[in-house]
Amino acid sequence: MELWYSEFHTGNVKLSVRINRQLFSGESEFQRIDVFESEEFGRFVALDGEIVFSDKDEFIYDEMVTHVPMTVHPNVKNVLIIGGGDGGVARELIHYPQIESIDVVESDKMFVDVCAEMFPDIAQGLKDERVNIYYEDGLRFLRNKKARYDLIINDSTDPLGHTEGLFTKEFYGSCYKALRDDGIMVYQHGSPFYDEDEVECRKMHRKVFRSFPVSRVYQAHIPTCPSGYWLFGFASKKYHPLEDFRPERFDNLNIETWYYTTNLHRGAFMLPKYVEDLLEEEENSL
Amino acid sequence: MELWYSEFHTGNVKLSVRINRQLFSGESEFQRIDVFESEEFGRFVALDGEIVFSDKDEFIYDEMVTHVPMTVHPNVKNVLIIGGGDGGVARELIHYPQIESIDVVESDKMFVDVCAEMFPDIAQGLKDERVNIYYEDGLRFLRNKKARYDLIINDSTDPLGHTEGLFTKEFYGSCYKALRDDGIMVYQHGSPFYDEDEVECRKMHRKVFRSFPVSRVYQAHIPTCPSGYWLFGFASKKYHPLEDFRPERFDNLNIETWYYTTNLHRGAFMLPKYVEDLLEEEENSL
Repeated sequence: MELWYSEFHTGNVKLSVRINRQLFSGESEFQRIDVFESEEFGRFVALDGEIVFSDKDEFIYDEMVTHVPMTVHPNVKNVLIIGGGDGGVARELIHYPQIESIDVVESDKMFVDVCAEMFPDIAQGLKDERVNIYYEDGLRFLRNKKARYDLIINDSTDPLGHTEGLFTKEFYGSCYKALRDDGIMVYQHGSPFYDEDEVECRKMHRKVFRSFPVSRVYQAHIPTCPSGYWLFGFASKKYHPLEDFRPERFDNLNIETWYYTTNLHRGAFMLPKYVEDLLEEEENSL
Repeated sequence: MELWYSEFHTGNVKLSVRINRQLFSGESEFQRIDVFESEEFGRFVALDGEIVFSDKDEFIYDEMVTHVPMTVHPNVKNVLIIGGGDGGVARELIHYPQIESIDVVESDKMFVDVCAEMFPDIAQGLKDERVNIYYEDGLRFLRNKKARYDLIINDSTDPLGHTEGLFTKEFYGSCYKALRDDGIMVYQHGSPFYDEDEVECRKMHRKVFRSFPVSRVYQAHIPTCPSGYWLFGFASKKYHPLEDFRPERFDNLNIETWYYTTNLHRGAFMLPKYVEDLLEEEENSL
């Protein structure tokens, strides 16, 4: 018997992963949730048929959205994670003793419960006493929040699914208001390689570049993402991701990582020419 | 009708590309050669069932093996390309006026002929008057060459196919001898992500690190490579890829690129922790 999970990265390219067995399949109020066990990626979760993380490569994503802003902002006390119900981002954040609270806003309780059962090593991040989970829509949660957070990590991945509202100008505006005067927002910037992804990537940069004084993009190689290449956005009211970067903030804590290093931090902002060009085109079109 | 090209990146992961039509299929003395036309990657060539380049992403590979060493070595006059029968690397090299000769050693004449017909824009690189093509085995070609080249680019991709001889200690030793006292060798270092690729990647680093005074590894994101992530080796008798890097050597020539920038040059050497670790383990095991 052969069992293959296939995911279309575009209408004309697909990635297939050999499956040992399916561990869970359910339909929540918001989405279809599947968990598979594979030889190459270990266990992985697909939401509406798109891999959101796997045992084998989640470290790349979780480390990159966390340690990059934490090494730039001098004193993060209050963090908001939008999405993040799997616990991977929280697990990285709890290494920092100066953090006082981590609010996780995840609309889908079934997703949190499934991850807690199937991915205990990742989900343990949510057990820290500084973590509070709110089962709510991210946009609604943000509406009355003013100058309350030092760091917002938008862990929502899909600009077209039920989380569409988390990729609008209104949403970025709400994040801006919810941040303190020196706050940072980190968000998914998609993959720039395939034409259809490039369109979304451009739109996103246009919206954020307009909303924040500092708006830079950085990269990582994530095998299960379209074309294996993923971008993150770093939007900030004050701090620049390289000029205000202080490696000792990370190095002094002896945090064990598999992807992030303070050397890689700098390299992650050195983008290919075609990516630089598309971002600049959007900046100049404003 | 649906027509799909599929390639196993490991025994448990495959990438599939929707095909419009097959343009060529032939069996040379050395390998099976197929050319396909696809929506997403334009035309691409597969050798023995592995994509070696596509219209859409060849620029990444060709720019990265060329401009990185050319911006480090102060005066490259004589270049040897082992493999490179498609012409992509030569096309990048001919931008440099100081280069006097480019020897291309390609064992498979059918591959050169097929590329010339199917990829004229790429193959035009071989028409420059400084280029000489030798239809020979790379290892044999190198045997009597002493201190003749400033730069050797090993464009052979497969450590297990008919080009296996180009990944041996003997081969790296021959390259060392064929280089002048300040020569540089750039070569394919494979993809480090999947376990079976990691094994080859480690072996390669052990061999080269032992043969050259300077041995560093750099990276690029190439969608058609396993996991979308590819490494290159930079081995050198004298120059260090960052300490001896002079951006003006590239910037003064106004070469148009889509991937390489002198900023990205630095970033390409800033590797993820898991890659740093595996390279260091091999260095320390000697």
